[in-house]
Amino acid sequence: MARQRSHHARGPKRAPKPAGPVRDLIYGSHAAEAALGNTRRLIQAIYVTENALKRLRPAIEARGIGAELKTPKDLDRLTGPDARHQGVVVETAPLEAPNLTDLEAAKLVIVLDQVSDPHNVGAVLRSAAAFGADALIMTARNSPPLNGTLAKAASGGLEHVDVVHVTNLARALAQLAAFGYTRIGLDGGASQTLEATQSPPPLALVLGAEGKGLRRLTAENCDYVCRLATPGPLASLNVSNAAAIALHIVRTGWN
Amino acid sequence: MARQRSHHARGPKRAPKPAGPVRDLIYGSHAAEAALGNTRRLIQAIYVTENALKRLRPAIEARGIGAELKTPKDLDRLTGPDARHQGVVVETAPLEAPNLTDLEAAKLVIVLDQVSDPHNVGAVLRSAAAFGADALIMTARNSPPLNGTLAKAASGGLEHVDVVHVTNLARALAQLAAFGYTRIGLDGGASQTLEATQSPPPLALVLGAEGKGLRRLTAENCDYVCRLATPGPLASLNVSNAAAIALHIVRTGWN
Repeated sequence: MARQRSHHARGPKRAPKPAGPVRDLIYGSHAAEAALGNTRRLIQAIYVTENALKRLRPAIEARGIGAELKTPKDLDRLTGPDARHQGVVVETAPLEAPNLTDLEAAKLVIVLDQVSDPHNVGAVLRSAAAFGADALIMTARNSPPLNGTLAKAASGGLEHVDVVHVTNLARALAQLAAFGYTRIGLDGGASQTLEATQSPPPLALVLGAEGKGLRRLTAENCDYVCRLATPGPLASLNVSNAAAIALHIVRTGWN
Repeated sequence: MARQRSHHARGPKRAPKPAGPVRDLIYGSHAAEAALGNTRRLIQAIYVTENALKRLRPAIEARGIGAELKTPKDLDRLTGPDARHQGVVVETAPLEAPNLTDLEAAKLVIVLDQVSDPHNVGAVLRSAAAFGADALIMTARNSPPLNGTLAKAASGGLEHVDVVHVTNLARALAQLAAFGYTRIGLDGGASQTLEATQSPPPLALVLGAEGKGLRRLTAENCDYVCRLATPGPLASLNVSNAAAIALHIVRTGWN
């Protein structure tokens, strides 16, 4: 917060870039607006088209950092041509990374076992935020960066759900058990359904990558491995759709 | 089927291209394998890398059409660089398009109101297939083509769920009512929840585009407009995740 305030004191001029090499680009209306509204996020610069500025002026003024006007082409160059930035790019430092121990008092976390597609991880974050999950746990290796494509797919979810990176997922699951979590892995081949499984909080929902599913050690560190009841001809769901349904089942069961 | 059989009679040589300009490319392991297994689909050619051929040989041999060996770079050129074709591209005629009247005896359909993103529509098709929905109804305008990105995201769902294109969605919804369907629109701002709404078959679930939601005339042609109960800080879900949860709720209610 102290760093935030010092930016604010500079007034509406653009904040200077920090010396360090780390900068994340967050683009797309919803993702950018949520990033501007997140006081835990250090904003380095805001690039915006005239059109998008009309829409985003309240969020930008509330943040107290001047935006630089750009053409859509300028933003294309910044983000790459396929980014669909919707006229706004926010340059930001990464969010402070929480630790596993910060989740001791949490109620609901999602664990992703080497899901590498940023669209999928972003969509999982969005549903996690919609269903009030506290955190997303991923391995530091083989997980997509928390910016760009992922942030856009999360549509603001990145600002509401803590993302915890761990080096060893099996050990993290053991730690969650020590905190009292029930750990439920999802696997289309399981015999038991999630609907029929007791799942009081605190709960960890564990999902694997498309095609590969849960790794053996991951499954071994779950209390239950369950499937979702799918009556149709195709047995497997997109990982973000599976996560959304699982979150819905679990939250409905808690009411 | 007659056309399929004539290809089969040619033996393992590549089938000739038809004179017409219409050819769809279906790529990605799951999507391509499902296309090869769909006898309603006319296959024009199969392009495959040596690696992918090892995996796909049973599906290709069952189809009785010879595959052309290609390098991954050849396939990149065919699909564009971002396609992640996984070593296989199937060239095919579009599936025969069913009509709305074919849905008179169906139980469960999804209606998309101008959802244009092919990843999203593909993911909806995949979940529709997993939950045994009969068809997906979209407007002919503003809907993505049934190939490439959409087919890959559908992961085979395109071969299991009929896609019906209509020119006027409001009129199509009126037609479904005449067939006896209950039509439920989903809107994050509705007061009633889907969970608390009677939804016996035949049922049409109607979802709008990201951001825009249901158009006025679309909502007016629904019997109910409902939201999904999301207790978290973010109110809106990705359209495919919303569809997946809605399908789950509906199918669970029918058991």
